[in-house]
This record gives sequence, structure tokens and C-alpha cells, in this order.
Amino acid sequence: MENYIFQAPTKVYFGKDQIKNLPDILSNFGKNVLLTYGGGSIKKNGIYDRVQELLKDFNVFELPGIEPNPRIKTVEKGAEICKANNIDVILAVGGGSTIDCSKVISAATYYDGNPWDLVIDSSKITKTLPLVTILTLAATGSEMNSSAVISNTEKNEKIGTHSPLITPKVSILDPEYTYTVPAYQTAAGSIDIMSHVIENYFNSTEGTYIPDRFAESLLKTVIKYCPVALIEPTNYEARANLMWASSMALSGIIGTGKKGSWTCHSIEHVLSAFYDITHGIGLAIITPRWMRHILSEQTVNKFVEYAINVWNVDPINKDNMEIAKEGIQATEDFFNSCGIPMNLGKLGIDDSLLDKMAHCAYEQGHFDDTYVKLTEEDIAQILRDSL
Amino acid sequence: MENYIFQAPTKVYFGKDQIKNLPDILSNFGKNVLLTYGGGSIKKNGIYDRVQELLKDFNVFELPGIEPNPRIKTVEKGAEICKANNIDVILAVGGGSTIDCSKVISAATYYDGNPWDLVIDSSKITKTLPLVTILTLAATGSEMNSSAVISNTEKNEKIGTHSPLITPKVSILDPEYTYTVPAYQTAAGSIDIMSHVIENYFNSTEGTYIPDRFAESLLKTVIKYCPVALIEPTNYEARANLMWASSMALSGIIGTGKKGSWTCHSIEHVLSAFYDITHGIGLAIITPRWMRHILSEQTVNKFVEYAINVWNVDPINKDNMEIAKEGIQATEDFFNSCGIPMNLGKLGIDDSLLDKMAHCAYEQGHFDDTYVKLTEEDIAQILRDSL
Repeated sequence: MENYIFQAPTKVYFGKDQIKNLPDILSNFGKNVLLTYGGGSIKKNGIYDRVQELLKDFNVFELPGIEPNPRIKTVEKGAEICKANNIDVILAVGGGSTIDCSKVISAATYYDGNPWDLVIDSSKITKTLPLVTILTLAATGSEMNSSAVISNTEKNEKIGTHSPLITPKVSILDPEYTYTVPAYQTAAGSIDIMSHVIENYFNSTEGTYIPDRFAESLLKTVIKYCPVALIEPTNYEARANLMWASSMALSGIIGTGKKGSWTCHSIEHVLSAFYDITHGIGLAIITPRWMRHILSEQTVNKFVEYAINVWNVDPINKDNMEIAKEGIQATEDFFNSCGIPMNLGKLGIDDSLLDKMAHCAYEQGHFDDTYVKLTEEDIAQILRDSL
Repeated sequence: MENYIFQAPTKVYFGKDQIKNLPDILSNFGKNVLLTYGGGSIKKNGIYDRVQELLKDFNVFELPGIEPNPRIKTVEKGAEICKANNIDVILAVGGGSTIDCSKVISAATYYDGNPWDLVIDSSKITKTLPLVTILTLAATGSEMNSSAVISNTEKNEKIGTHSPLITPKVSILDPEYTYTVPAYQTAAGSIDIMSHVIENYFNSTEGTYIPDRFAESLLKTVIKYCPVALIEPTNYEARANLMWASSMALSGIIGTGKKGSWTCHSIEHVLSAFYDITHGIGLAIITPRWMRHILSEQTVNKFVEYAINVWNVDPINKDNMEIAKEGIQATEDFFNSCGIPMNLGKLGIDDSLLDKMAHCAYEQGHFDDTYVKLTEEDIAQILRDSL
């Protein structure tokens, strides 16, 4: 087990109608609010109107239209609004994209250079506006952590930045706000949650019993409740457990004591950067192919643990390799059963940019530090297997 | 699932030699430090000397001799030192008793009345000194939460108080600092951890899948590592997992979405108040008796879940009541195997004050709000079964 620092400073208001606390929460920071959101679904489901009604005594400025893979141009736009209007606090209403974009806006407001600098070098983040979030999609965990991922379409880059200063001060998590999330996005978000857990779980640090059992708990949560939410979108228990799983998966709690870099996210980021696909879908396609690629005598024990503890694979009369393969197959079958298109071809992606993507992924990731080290050719092979 | 607020603001430095960060941590708060500790074990194992060496540029005042069940008189003494010397920060080095006492000192420093008021009415806690802790015993979870339990020997009362203002700002958790904890205290601390989890787990709120699986994870952690630590006191992996289990068990994370009051702690508190016994020992004795007392057709399903998921009881060819009873027996057998004296008689406690203790427990607890409601006679019966 490695030494670590743990803190979960975001104050989470979880449950039905917790939004009623919004005026009290925001008034701790000031009167001038930048309200950020995405494509406008919050106008259809009533959250926008509720926010406006609650903020009638505040000066509300708006940044709508944050993209699903939020762009650095949008960060610039937001920071300009903050600077021009003495914004006191940013209120992000949406999923991970809106929150991630708002995190970097909060830092860019106090940075005079190009905001992309803050993405590629987080040490340049030295001061931020306070950020409050209202979550509308269970997926990225951005509502309770210190990370943000931003795309630069000019450079075909999608890069994560990390700083305790961008952690939300308060997050309002009302599971009912995810009732209107369509099935496809519910599935993609659920697999994003699972991927965060899997990236932490497949790790070579020894002795991390607690985060490993917590990880299995969260995977079982998604396996239990994602199918329920797909069939019954207004099932509170399912939406609530998925939402809390989202926050827990990436709050740091299941990474305690572990070291090393992530694999599938680094590969998926180039897919999103080149083809602007939904993050969770890319992860669903890549993950089982990566698992098969790295399965070996060296890794089989971890896969056996995963198969038995997460997927309840019956180990009787099977050798370790068989058990491990059943666990991987169960993973792929589950993603498939959630309605995910499980090949890149189904997203219109062919092999034309494959080597270029593998090269970019290798350059941007840290594949000498992942659970199993990967070469550029390994990444190309995983992408090829995903076609 | 109930609405809830979650936050884990304590910054935890976990691992080997994290104490090296102490000067940087304390200098955020000021130069005048009140160092609090217990019976002096930190002088034997070298932690005291290391702290003094690290704090050579600070003005260090001391409050030694904090009792295992810390007393309100000691709180008064600590607050007087803080007031007289413009203390900027309290550094508690010890287990839950030292930390609990220091928490109430931090509040009493800014309170002009009798500090016992702060224990019986936490709304009177309005301002506190910052508190930094160095943990030397895995047990109470006080290092990462907002609770403190104080005894008033004049009144035979042992009462908990709760306020976010008394939560430690920083806690240093070095598993090596628990290498010298004797077997009996290691066992008692481990059972205290398990009891915190069990009190949260046996709860009638529906739909709390994540905290329930997390709870099982922590129970399995103690079941796996307590026996290792008893045989091999310097096994880092065992000590580290027990230490982190201590913090996680009472950080709020396994209580999310649940309502209701605790049972065994309220009964044990009167035992400690009347006989000054070790908290974890009292809990070990009471818990299986309480479980048997409340086992019924109404509660059997929860006990079946507990037996299978925590104790790996094989359910094949058994009815639910048998499975439940096996889980309870496994609990008692485990406590016994850790070397705990499993009867009150072994601690020199007979039935002479039994009815009085049952009456006090009933008056001080909230037994109409526990997993299964208890009457005063129920409590007396559980105590009688524990003799």
C-alpha cells in the first residue's frame, strides 16, 4: 500500500428537492452568479425554471451550450463573462461536461494567459472562483472531485487537469433530476462509472483490501441498478444508487493507497478527440478488448478475483484462465445488454486513423505506469480488436 | 433512502512517516500549540520525542493524562490552558479518548459556561480552535468525524456530542504507530470498528445498497486483519487496513441515506459510565446478546444477508432462522477468538446495578428510534444475558 492523502471536501446535498437550499448555499459566496449548462435539456425538464425562480434575488449571467466534450473555446468564453461581470460563484447545472468546463472557467477567470495552459499544466491553477453544481447525469464523478477533462479540437487533444482548487464547494445531487436522461445516456453514464472503478481496481499495488472491496461494491451497484433504470427511468432507488455510485467512484475513496496511471480512459480520450463520440460508449467498447489483451498468467489472479467477486462466476471445476475469461465475457455481455453498440464500426469509425490515434494515445497517456504496460502497438491492437 | 448531507473535510495524511508534514500542517494555524495525550505510551514508543523535535520552532503547551473514558474535568483543564496561553491549534496524539477530549476542549475554549453544557447541547458549540490529530489506535473513527464522547463521573453519564465545528482539520494516520498497541487493545479497537459498522448496517431504511455493501467490506476487513495484527503486531498491511477501516467506519460514508439511532453504543455507554470498562470490550459482550434478543421473523432477512455476505455462511439446505443464528454465532465466536472476555462477570460486573443501568441507558438513549425498538425491560434482559 502506498502513502496517500485523502479529503472529500465537497459538501453534498443528496436527495429529493435538495435544490431548495440553493439560495442559502450561493449566498455564502456572493450575488453575481454565472449559470452554466449544456444543450438545453434543463429547459425541458423544468430545472432551469426552478433555478431561475430560486435565484430571483441574485444577478444571474448565463453560459449555455457547453458541449458534450467541452471545448477550450467555451472555457475562454465563460472566463470572459466572469471577468467582465465580477462573478462571485459559478453554478454548473448538468453532467460532467458542464461541470468540467465550469471548473476550468473558475481557474481561467484568474489567469491572464491562454486557458489551455491550465489544462496541460495544472500548476498554473493558483486561484479559482467557488463552484456549486447541480448534477443531472450520473457518470463522471466530477461533482465531487478535483479533475476536469477539456478538448482542444484544433489539436485533436482531450486532456485531463487536476487541482484541489477546482473541486466543487457544494454539489446538489437529486436523483429525480436524472429521470429524464434517455436510456442510451443512462447506459453510457453507468459504464463511465464502472470504468472509473475498473481503472482503479486493476492495479498492481498490494494490500489495498478496503478500496478493492469498495470497488466491487460499486461495480455490483451499477450491475444491479443500471438495468432497472433502463426499464423504469423513474425508479428512485435505482437512480439514487447510480448517482451516488458516480460520486463515490471518483471521489478518491477507491483509489486510496494505489499508484499508477489509467489505461482505457487514455485510449478513449483520443477516440473522443478524433470522432467526438460519447465517452462512456468509447469506454464500453475498449474495456473488454483491453481486458482480453492483458490477460496472462501474470494477471489472471486479479481477473479471477474480479470474476468471482463482481460477476459471481462459479469457480467450481474451472481453471483460473476459464474463470477469468468468464468474468471478461460477463463484462462485455453486460455492456451489450445495456444497449451499447459494442464495435467502433457501429459508430462509423474505421481503421483509417487507427495508427494515428494509437500514436496520440501513447504520447498523451502514461502507459509505462499502467496496470500492464502497453506499447503503441498494443494500443493499436486494442483499437483494431474494437473495430 | 433518506435525504442526506455528506462531507469528509478532514485532510488525512495516511502512511509511513507522514508525521514529517507536521510543521507545515501546524504552521497554517499558528505558533502556540496545545499538545494533548493520554497515559504516556507515546513517550515509550518514541512518538512524543519525534513530535517535540518537529515542533522545536513552536510554543508547545501540554495536557497529558487524558483518561480512556475522557472526563469533563479534563476538558475544563484543557480549555483553561488554551485560554491562558492564546493557543492557536490543538494537536491531539492518541486514540479516540484523547481526540474526543480535545474536540470538546477546542469548543470549550470559546465557551464561558460549564463545558458539560456543550456535551448535552451541541447547539452551544459555536466556535472552536482548529484540531490536528496523530492517531495511535484504530478504533473510534474520531480522527475523521464530528463526534465526541465525554464522561461525567459525578453523574454516571457518558454522552456523545456532535458538531461539524469539532471535526479535525487534519489527521495523520501512520499504521506503524499502532505496532505497539497491545493485543487486548487491538482487539477492543477492532470490535469498536465493527460495532460502528453494525450499528449502521442493522437499519430499517430501504434501498441503501451502497452503504450496505461498503459496510460488509469494512466488516470483512476487520475479520481478515484483526487476527493477523494480533499474531503479528508489526504487519503493516494488517495495521494499515485496520486503521483505514476505523476512519471509514465512522466518517459518515456507511450511514448515507439511513435514519435512526444506535442501540449497542447506548447500552455500552452506561456500562462504561458505571464501571469505567474499555468501550470495545463492552460492545463485544453486548452485541451478540442484542442480536439474539431482536432476531425474529421481522428481522431475519437482514440477519441472513449479514450471515452470508459477511461471514460466508453457506445457506444450502438451511432455513433462514438457522442461517441468521449461524451469523450471530460467528460474530460471538470471532470476538471470543480475539481474546475478548465475553461475559460481564469476567470484568467483575454483577447484577447489582443492572436495573439502574438499564434505566439510565433507556433515559439517555433513543430506543424508540433504533432498528428494533427496545423497552427498559429489553435492555435489562440484554444486560442480564451478558452477565
